[in-house]
Amino acid sequence: MAKENKQQDNRQKVEQITDMEADFAQWYTDVCTKAELIDYTSVKGLYILRPYGYAIWESIQRELDARFKADGHENVSMPLLIPESLLQKERDHVAGFAPECAWVTVGGSEELEERLCIRPTSETLFCEHWAKTVASWRDLPKLYNQWCSVLRWEKTTRPFLRHREFLWQEGHTLHATAEEALEETERQLEVYAAVCEEYLAMPVTRGLKTEQEKFAGAERTYTIECMMHDRKALQNGTSHYFGDGFARAFGIQYSDRENKLQYPHQTSWGFTTRTIGGLIMTHGDNSGLVIPPKIAPIEVVVIPVATHRPGVNEAAERLVAALRGAGLRAKGDFGDNSPGWKYAEYEMKGVPLRIEIGPRDIEAGACVAARRDSGEKTALPLGEAATGARALLDDIQAALYKKAQRNLEDHTYAAGSIDDIIKINNSGGGFIKAMWCGADACEDEMKERAGVSARCIPFKQERVGEVCAACQKPAKHMVLWGVAY
Amino acid sequence: MAKENKQQDNRQKVEQITDMEADFAQWYTDVCTKAELIDYTSVKGLYILRPYGYAIWESIQRELDARFKADGHENVSMPLLIPESLLQKERDHVAGFAPECAWVTVGGSEELEERLCIRPTSETLFCEHWAKTVASWRDLPKLYNQWCSVLRWEKTTRPFLRHREFLWQEGHTLHATAEEALEETERQLEVYAAVCEEYLAMPVTRGLKTEQEKFAGAERTYTIECMMHDRKALQNGTSHYFGDGFARAFGIQYSDRENKLQYPHQTSWGFTTRTIGGLIMTHGDNSGLVIPPKIAPIEVVVIPVATHRPGVNEAAERLVAALRGAGLRAKGDFGDNSPGWKYAEYEMKGVPLRIEIGPRDIEAGACVAARRDSGEKTALPLGEAATGARALLDDIQAALYKKAQRNLEDHTYAAGSIDDIIKINNSGGGFIKAMWCGADACEDEMKERAGVSARCIPFKQERVGEVCAACQKPAKHMVLWGVAY
Repeated sequence: MAKENKQQDNRQKVEQITDMEADFAQWYTDVCTKAELIDYTSVKGLYILRPYGYAIWESIQRELDARFKADGHENVSMPLLIPESLLQKERDHVAGFAPECAWVTVGGSEELEERLCIRPTSETLFCEHWAKTVASWRDLPKLYNQWCSVLRWEKTTRPFLRHREFLWQEGHTLHATAEEALEETERQLEVYAAVCEEYLAMPVTRGLKTEQEKFAGAERTYTIECMMHDRKALQNGTSHYFGDGFARAFGIQYSDRENKLQYPHQTSWGFTTRTIGGLIMTHGDNSGLVIPPKIAPIEVVVIPVATHRPGVNEAAERLVAALRGAGLRAKGDFGDNSPGWKYAEYEMKGVPLRIEIGPRDIEAGACVAARRDSGEKTALPLGEAATGARALLDDIQAALYKKAQRNLEDHTYAAGSIDDIIKINNSGGGFIKAMWCGADACEDEMKERAGVSARCIPFKQERVGEVCAACQKPAKHMVLWGVAY
Repeated sequence: MAKENKQQDNRQKVEQITDMEADFAQWYTDVCTKAELIDYTSVKGLYILRPYGYAIWESIQRELDARFKADGHENVSMPLLIPESLLQKERDHVAGFAPECAWVTVGGSEELEERLCIRPTSETLFCEHWAKTVASWRDLPKLYNQWCSVLRWEKTTRPFLRHREFLWQEGHTLHATAEEALEETERQLEVYAAVCEEYLAMPVTRGLKTEQEKFAGAERTYTIECMMHDRKALQNGTSHYFGDGFARAFGIQYSDRENKLQYPHQTSWGFTTRTIGGLIMTHGDNSGLVIPPKIAPIEVVVIPVATHRPGVNEAAERLVAALRGAGLRAKGDFGDNSPGWKYAEYEMKGVPLRIEIGPRDIEAGACVAARRDSGEKTALPLGEAATGARALLDDIQAALYKKAQRNLEDHTYAAGSIDDIIKINNSGGGFIKAMWCGADACEDEMKERAGVSARCIPFKQERVGEVCAACQKPAKHMVLWGVAY
């Protein structure tokens, strides 16, 4: 691309965005690139998180990490590479991950004797370490976490939603008893749910994965599922209970208080950058991204208007300082672009609140706050700008949650048969509550005929019928079905 | 290893440590493992950073990251993998790194069309991104940083000092002018120097690398060099100025204010977990690690004595709460082990201050603080424990720096000839200031005959002679020579 075209391109970035109702997938890609969250590289599925995209991830990290540590978890760093023989130690695990591994076969100028895979997840590494270091009940529990990237050689890739390399945290814990491990599995799911609901303003459905959908090697996988604007489902964090399966495969044992050898019980749980994709598809609109204030890298942007008039920039600077002094993440934009251009830019970037300040405002001792979510404008007295902004941000946070909650409620349906589900899908789709007998064959039939997968068996069970929607035999569970990202 | 042996092993961990004067290398390895900083894996050169080791890295990260951001740098995330053709774009760079690359050749079940190396460093990825996104002087400077791991397939490996995979930060910046880029290179070196001196209590020598020692592809490499307890040198952070070499190789151009196309100027700078090795070898002693308070994950450990006596644990808990309330990173150890065992454990882990509290102390309304650096004990009134601990910690921080500074000064020598240097090496060695003519041949001769390499051309030049120590021809620079880790 010639330099002139690139500049042109930059100038027009806020003008060109696909209508989300016309082409949701293209709208999504437009937001990822035009809000400068992400860039493509020359390798399919490997993406760059640009400063603004990474700053959102840092906000999420800060919240999760503080909660993990408050619960006694410790961060560690495990290696990037796993020898093939180590990956193979747990049968179900390797069956699930080997097809997606990227393999290192050459180190320096030499062929390796054993090939090494780039970690798709690190259970095997934690197990190898624990087999060496855990000996007694005094060594338990181990509550570990690591922040890193993992690699899965996916065929289809999309920004945030499906990277070959993605950033995540993976918690791994080891406990003396099954009860303790199950408690941990549930507690960490609740941490994810809390961060989603309270910070990301994304309502979640908590539940258990079916046998087909659970993590490779797990006894149980818990999940939180979110509805996107297009009514599809996003799995937004999972927590796994392994029983003592890995401990047996890796020879991890501890002597209990009676000095008897026991196998410990294990969990793992992960939360990834895909949640940023979820954030975009939950709150975004035709002007671009909308970021909930609690997670926004910039909560308020101050834009001076008519900066050629004396005193305007100075007043804007004082305002930014006052907002920051009150603990708000505020930024002033004193650049050359026109106010209109700047408005569009920060709308694209989803900054929750914009404050405009010009000569007339200054004369009136006020400024104008514009909400990103509703566009609504409020005059704020300059002396109370920080308090006023804080109140508006709190309101935006609540409004975004409420709007997402309404989308979820408005498009969640009960269905008694596959035909019902097909009808729902034909009229826009959504989440479908339907009874299930527990048979794999019925789950498969749901996928094949209605194109929906079992998102989870919700913790909050309801009886929306007596028989399985697929086979019409007596039902065991209510399942939440949907079309998943 | 049988479980019983492992337990035995754990119990004895604080008793077995090699004398540092007898075998410094073995002492170092003992500290790395017995202070539970690190664990080995089944792949040579890939290590696990255990919770305590990783917590030290998190302390260092916190300090550096805050300083980077205060200077306007933004964090990003670049991919893990670099296509071979991309790595080859800058001639000197690929020549330096290709021999150490690990190569991914298989993704999923397919041979890749082009092999991908695991990043040994990420200049090429930043350049590819900038070639697409930088167009105008308005886009400059770009001040980027990333926290990640990199991989270099080294033949010889040692905990912290030389991993095949190590954690680091890599800053990458792009500037309109050479002057700005040079300023950045120097500013970031000064950030590293400040964190080393003020936080890690490690005195540094700032200087320029010789042509032979500089980074592959750089025009200039700046370094900070530290003297270890055994008088060897550790390179503890480097900052590179690239000129416009990479910009030309990757076709990065911007239009300046006069709308003329220009090549921007570039820097990169890195700081790694190897500094933890430096920390061990600077401050450690025969009881184990010694961590400077400002960087210590635990600043004060409180150990109750005679816990069977009523009120002891309660008093110790109140003390921990008071210390934490005053902002100190304090921990109480209420476990089953004997006080003596605990003393040895926290000495091994280098916790700067231990506070003992027993029935007699409580009666006297006091506690006893024991310094890790000197062993000195001080009685502190319970009501002033936090203030007293703070003062002692400040004193320990200063004392550690002073001791390291004395080691550096006592073992830095001036030499006029290679024979002089050999004599110095034969009587214990150290840093050697000697003049140099600037010829590669003389640098090589220093290596071959005296076994020393050019650590740097210090910014603070002195004239310790008129002629090159190797060839006795007129000298250009004073060089700091040493034996490097």
